[in-house]
Amino acid sequence: MSTGANIKDTINSMGKKAFDAKFELLKLDEESKNQVLLKVADALVENTANILTANERDIERGLANGMHEGLLDRLRLTDNRINDMAEGIRQVAGLPDPVGTVMDDWTLENGLNIKKVSVPLGVIGIIYESRPNVTADAFSLTFKAGNVVILKGGSDAIESNMAITNVIRDAIEKEGYSKDFIQLIPFTDRSAVNELLALREYVDVIIPRGSARLIKTVCENSKIPVIETGSGNCHIYVDKAADINKAIPIIINAKTQRIGVCNAAESLVVHKDIMEEFLPKFKEEMAKNNVELRADEESIKILTDAKPATEADFGTEYLDYILSVKTVNNVDEAIEHINKYNTGHSESIITEDKETAEKFLKGIDAACVYVNASTRFTDGFQFGFGAEIGISTQKLHARGPMGLKELTSYKYAITGDGQIRK
Amino acid sequence: MSTGANIKDTINSMGKKAFDAKFELLKLDEESKNQVLLKVADALVENTANILTANERDIERGLANGMHEGLLDRLRLTDNRINDMAEGIRQVAGLPDPVGTVMDDWTLENGLNIKKVSVPLGVIGIIYESRPNVTADAFSLTFKAGNVVILKGGSDAIESNMAITNVIRDAIEKEGYSKDFIQLIPFTDRSAVNELLALREYVDVIIPRGSARLIKTVCENSKIPVIETGSGNCHIYVDKAADINKAIPIIINAKTQRIGVCNAAESLVVHKDIMEEFLPKFKEEMAKNNVELRADEESIKILTDAKPATEADFGTEYLDYILSVKTVNNVDEAIEHINKYNTGHSESIITEDKETAEKFLKGIDAACVYVNASTRFTDGFQFGFGAEIGISTQKLHARGPMGLKELTSYKYAITGDGQIRK
Repeated sequence: MSTGANIKDTINSMGKKAFDAKFELLKLDEESKNQVLLKVADALVENTANILTANERDIERGLANGMHEGLLDRLRLTDNRINDMAEGIRQVAGLPDPVGTVMDDWTLENGLNIKKVSVPLGVIGIIYESRPNVTADAFSLTFKAGNVVILKGGSDAIESNMAITNVIRDAIEKEGYSKDFIQLIPFTDRSAVNELLALREYVDVIIPRGSARLIKTVCENSKIPVIETGSGNCHIYVDKAADINKAIPIIINAKTQRIGVCNAAESLVVHKDIMEEFLPKFKEEMAKNNVELRADEESIKILTDAKPATEADFGTEYLDYILSVKTVNNVDEAIEHINKYNTGHSESIITEDKETAEKFLKGIDAACVYVNASTRFTDGFQFGFGAEIGISTQKLHARGPMGLKELTSYKYAITGDGQIRK
Repeated sequence: MSTGANIKDTINSMGKKAFDAKFELLKLDEESKNQVLLKVADALVENTANILTANERDIERGLANGMHEGLLDRLRLTDNRINDMAEGIRQVAGLPDPVGTVMDDWTLENGLNIKKVSVPLGVIGIIYESRPNVTADAFSLTFKAGNVVILKGGSDAIESNMAITNVIRDAIEKEGYSKDFIQLIPFTDRSAVNELLALREYVDVIIPRGSARLIKTVCENSKIPVIETGSGNCHIYVDKAADINKAIPIIINAKTQRIGVCNAAESLVVHKDIMEEFLPKFKEEMAKNNVELRADEESIKILTDAKPATEADFGTEYLDYILSVKTVNNVDEAIEHINKYNTGHSESIITEDKETAEKFLKGIDAACVYVNASTRFTDGFQFGFGAEIGISTQKLHARGPMGLKELTSYKYAITGDGQIRK
């Protein structure tokens, strides 16, 4: 039975173990870390049967609880999916070590030498609710960057997550290191999240991965610094100087290539001088792609099949075959509208006018601002980072796709010869 | 009368104004920003009489409330102090603009060009309780980095802070820009702080400056990302391979040059093999400098005048003429002890052994780790940043002394020619 006091004590003791383990992990060099990752990958494949058995219990519980087929599919593990997990870990082993980079190096007049050196963040708490493969994924990235991780997965996947975590812990221990480099919170109670968010003494950073609601709860309740990996209410602005032959494929791609993702477009902003030429073609293409439109007063005159857009539409991340449409008189109005409704994720302008493009690039407050390209490129792999732990929509620390480098901090290493301050 | 609802509404409306102002500020180039700063500096000097009158009211209230002379001195403004404020602002005007730096620039195989460009953080909330000059100081630094600021000063200084803020706002308006580039919360109620900490919609970052208690409250209650500028429980570790002629002056400097500051030393850690040679001299020098010692069981055999150190002593930032003493058997024990009790600020080892120094530099989890130097160098000006908004003791975003660069974020500006994701 998990009581409140039991949960609090257990999570506090997990925090203490993680804190101690982070100093042990600090001692591992690049080669040792990669060796652990490769062994963990092998262990996951070797233990496929165990993991699938645990996963079957989650699936059965999901079926009994009437879980939707879409969610069941996300939850389900197979031989192939476990192989993919292992392959992902091997790839992370092959990436460059982000720790120990000398980012800056200077010497003061008094002879003190200052080096700014990248170091692990320390103990990272990751709260997620998605597929069980996140368990392996989150471990490999945080570990490669020298961090200890405490995971809190979704209750639907608890058996699968626990099985994966135990395989990883055993593999680490076999290599002679602390299995507490990774711990999974064994409770499904919501209070467990709050206990984790209060562990200021032991946990350096919290990263939530999941729904907008989960992320909001974590940001608002955490006493520990959070990296917000947020939702994306992304816009495409078709300027009066747009090349329509670029605009149409970009909009189709940004809206429909994968509808449930944070870098998908949710809103079209269109300059009124290009409306009459552009909107009829746009309407036709959206219809072909089964995209329902929610148009403002101006654009609905041409987009006659659309529903009228409400104020709420402009603030909604549909994650569906729906797109809102807003007309503007100039790029300044477009920038203002987007800055009002966007979530700081990805915004794109379609224009052949360089000055307008510059204005948009400078004026839009978002992690990724595009000219003549799909917002779907906001992704650690697309950016060439070789990995991605999430996409940050906050201003502190990291913004946009976060790879291994974004899982590090820095320290100043200062070497003197007896210097004192005058 | 300030009622709860009134406070909530006012602060919300201040947030909205700051949000709008941040887009206006984004348009100012380096020259315009510097011009504003120089005019603000002149205006402060020109309005000295007004500011001193307001300050006099704070002083009188302080006296009536029985405020200590030390605090009264911090609160008191003079012609000279206002001139110093203005001079500080002129110096910030002369610093390089941290905004618009291309930090990285690469092109993907598909032709998409990605530039990582430094941008302002946006709207910064600064909560402070110290001297009224922080008002001008905080404005100049945040503004130079392109940020709008909402200030919440201490209630003791509210008249002075308000007078300074109004002079700055008027000077900005005279230059033709929004006076909302700076706003001061006009309430002394504690609830005003909580209202500010809840303004997720408008405020990007919170920076607390003040006592450990203030900072803890802010970190634990903010729904907005915080940069923790923390307290410093700093250690000096005298290794068995220490040069005692370096150790003594460094300890005197780190402990006594200024006792009330976060980078002052609070604890000595000493290798037991050097105790007998080192501690008698150390004892003599500490007595000369009126430093009271709190010694552990081993060291008290030599430091016979010391009080016995308790567990609590090792975790205390005295900010006073007191130093705790802990003996260890080797550098690993020293690292473990320091990592247990330090606050992530500044730690120093005194040793002539390079390998031991490397171990200490790598193993200590703190913003600044020193070899053979005083911890008092942890400071934006000493580091050559030309400015300092505070010293971060957290891992996210910035660590150690924060100058102008640490008051910026970045965005990715991505330019294509019609690229869509495959």
